[in-house]
Amino acid sequence: MKILVINAGSSSLKFTLFNMKTEEVLAKGLVERIGLAHTHFIYKRGDGLGAESNPKIVKYEDALKIVCEKLVDPDMGVLKSLKEVDAIGHRVVHGGEQITKPALIDEHVKDIIKDCFSLAPLHNPPNMAGIEACEKIFKRTPCIAVFDTAFHQTMPPEAYLYAIPYELYTKYGIRRYGFHGTSHSYVARATAKFLEIPFNKLKLITCHLGNGCSITAINKGIVHDTSMGMTPLEGLVMGTRCGDIDPAIVIRMFELGMTVEEIDKYLNKKSGLLGVGGIGSSDMRDIIAAADNGDQQALRALRMFIRRIVKYTGAYYALLGGADAIVFTGGIGEGSALIRRRVIDKLASFGIRIAPKVNDACKGKEPATISSEDSAWRAIVMPTNEELMIARETVLVISHENENPEKE
Amino acid sequence: MKILVINAGSSSLKFTLFNMKTEEVLAKGLVERIGLAHTHFIYKRGDGLGAESNPKIVKYEDALKIVCEKLVDPDMGVLKSLKEVDAIGHRVVHGGEQITKPALIDEHVKDIIKDCFSLAPLHNPPNMAGIEACEKIFKRTPCIAVFDTAFHQTMPPEAYLYAIPYELYTKYGIRRYGFHGTSHSYVARATAKFLEIPFNKLKLITCHLGNGCSITAINKGIVHDTSMGMTPLEGLVMGTRCGDIDPAIVIRMFELGMTVEEIDKYLNKKSGLLGVGGIGSSDMRDIIAAADNGDQQALRALRMFIRRIVKYTGAYYALLGGADAIVFTGGIGEGSALIRRRVIDKLASFGIRIAPKVNDACKGKEPATISSEDSAWRAIVMPTNEELMIARETVLVISHENENPEKE
Repeated sequence: MKILVINAGSSSLKFTLFNMKTEEVLAKGLVERIGLAHTHFIYKRGDGLGAESNPKIVKYEDALKIVCEKLVDPDMGVLKSLKEVDAIGHRVVHGGEQITKPALIDEHVKDIIKDCFSLAPLHNPPNMAGIEACEKIFKRTPCIAVFDTAFHQTMPPEAYLYAIPYELYTKYGIRRYGFHGTSHSYVARATAKFLEIPFNKLKLITCHLGNGCSITAINKGIVHDTSMGMTPLEGLVMGTRCGDIDPAIVIRMFELGMTVEEIDKYLNKKSGLLGVGGIGSSDMRDIIAAADNGDQQALRALRMFIRRIVKYTGAYYALLGGADAIVFTGGIGEGSALIRRRVIDKLASFGIRIAPKVNDACKGKEPATISSEDSAWRAIVMPTNEELMIARETVLVISHENENPEKE
Repeated sequence: MKILVINAGSSSLKFTLFNMKTEEVLAKGLVERIGLAHTHFIYKRGDGLGAESNPKIVKYEDALKIVCEKLVDPDMGVLKSLKEVDAIGHRVVHGGEQITKPALIDEHVKDIIKDCFSLAPLHNPPNMAGIEACEKIFKRTPCIAVFDTAFHQTMPPEAYLYAIPYELYTKYGIRRYGFHGTSHSYVARATAKFLEIPFNKLKLITCHLGNGCSITAINKGIVHDTSMGMTPLEGLVMGTRCGDIDPAIVIRMFELGMTVEEIDKYLNKKSGLLGVGGIGSSDMRDIIAAADNGDQQALRALRMFIRRIVKYTGAYYALLGGADAIVFTGGIGEGSALIRRRVIDKLASFGIRIAPKVNDACKGKEPATISSEDSAWRAIVMPTNEELMIARETVLVISHENENPEKE
């Protein structure tokens, strides 16, 4: 069974083609700067062969066309025909309240994705464009939507409601949705497998630390809380997003004469490590390097980043009534032994200790336990793989559809 | 030594006159609805004698005048002359970054209080009006300002900075200040005394739960973090304030067509228990009664209130690296055995247990340990007394001034 995974962003289209018998990647790549100057297409086969080009591309459909041409190319391709693709899994950021699991895309599901345009204005429209491009090119191949918000839909109302007038929830859907759900779900399940403990018996705190950062409390397979909220702006300190702030700061920014657009840009694009780190970079590696060189502002940004993770970990430990493991994933979670060590060191009062050598040696390519053997619970590094998770979910949906052909 | 404590709010003037030799209250009361219809004056002596009236009052100075007349009244008074008042302690909400402790009020301190008008537009102007009224009536009696923000000024930068562009801090003072400082300081010190452990050896989590709610992490007398932020809007769920929300919600409210004033009112006056509880009341007693009667929305509001305290307690336990005690104070903290029990029950994984009988019997009039004897750390109820704290601080300032008469 061959599954194509599509992640259509604001000006990019990423793809991964899996052979699901072995879960190996047959080919992957992306088209970036769609509709902009210098569009760039990167294609790489599982065996290492690859190609790059700078085609002129304005629409997602055209981007997908050049991807498909390459996939069936006699020299560079991995398929004889596009008909070999059994199904297409689409990453969709926002499914609102109605969507709690991956879904075969029909008119109803498309309506839901469109209904959520206002909740995820930067993500859902390009996600939809990616779906429509596939429908035109693949015609009868089933398309499945896998939602970033779906995994978090198990949160109880006291976690997803804000203490604001209730009609803001009922009228406008203002509530916590949570994001990175596919990643949190993937690493949580992979951790269960790694620990050889059933997923539904574990208490986990999963930290997805990349350019966007979020942390999730999972009890017996059920999300109890997550740090991102109505949008991905809330929660941890991120590359360019502020995370938690006094909401009155937004009001103050208006009073200072900024426009809605400026404030949105300030908090989403100019804050986080970029805003407070003072070195003009949102990249944690640059922040760490500057802090190492004695830059006080970078050092403070680093401390703020770690402190916020420590606070959320303590909060979620309390909510869960203990934890079996804290799991690190994402670019920073997998790549930075320093961040992992600093977080775990601060959690000493919770009976967890780092195993320094294992942690330093861990590059995040393989699952690893980085806590000491005498720790009361574990710290784990688990590389995330959202594409594989989307492919797996896609297989599940179409298998289910094939078993129940009568059901919608 | 006799100290008059003044708390001038947006339309009220509260006063307490202490004999500081014994710390007993000689007289207390308030003038409410200053400048509005039906101004109301309540006066009560320490021995229980009292009086009420409905004078016509427009200015703070006139409110203070009727207070002073009563204090020296041959029948109802407790003083022969106003000259018996050795000093006046003023509650001032915001002292910004420059003020880290109580201060003798001179032109410089008045300038600082005025500089902070924009940070506390509802509080600092009436606080200032109360000071100016005293200066006119008492003339040469020293006035001392005790700031709600001062105790929190020991927070490290990684606690008080937000992950927003750094120039918002340097240019506009946008940072965490924290409030209820006088109360947190009072109950923390009183807890140290109660436990017979030096204040500078304790790790404390103090919960001030009233109509406004805040929680503070104190390590060896130093504030490490506090839940209120640039304004009192951030943090816990409160009577009418939202506490923590996704900052993008404020942006969304603008996009929905609300004005700055409407949003400010929504989040400060119509949110919290009032907004989400669905019973038209911001009073925790009403919420608990409705939840007891099976009202699902009130029950959920109650759960949200408790959950937020539990999350912050876990977070602060992590920041402090353990804790010696969690301290409950304020109207709800002193008065609601239910809230205290529910919070402590949720903290079982931290090795703390409620002592149900002691907790149920505790009405918050006296300090009490409400955790079980086998708990790893303690839960304590400590009645707050901001007026007494202000009076004590006032004594300290004038004693110091008298010792160092040359110093400004």
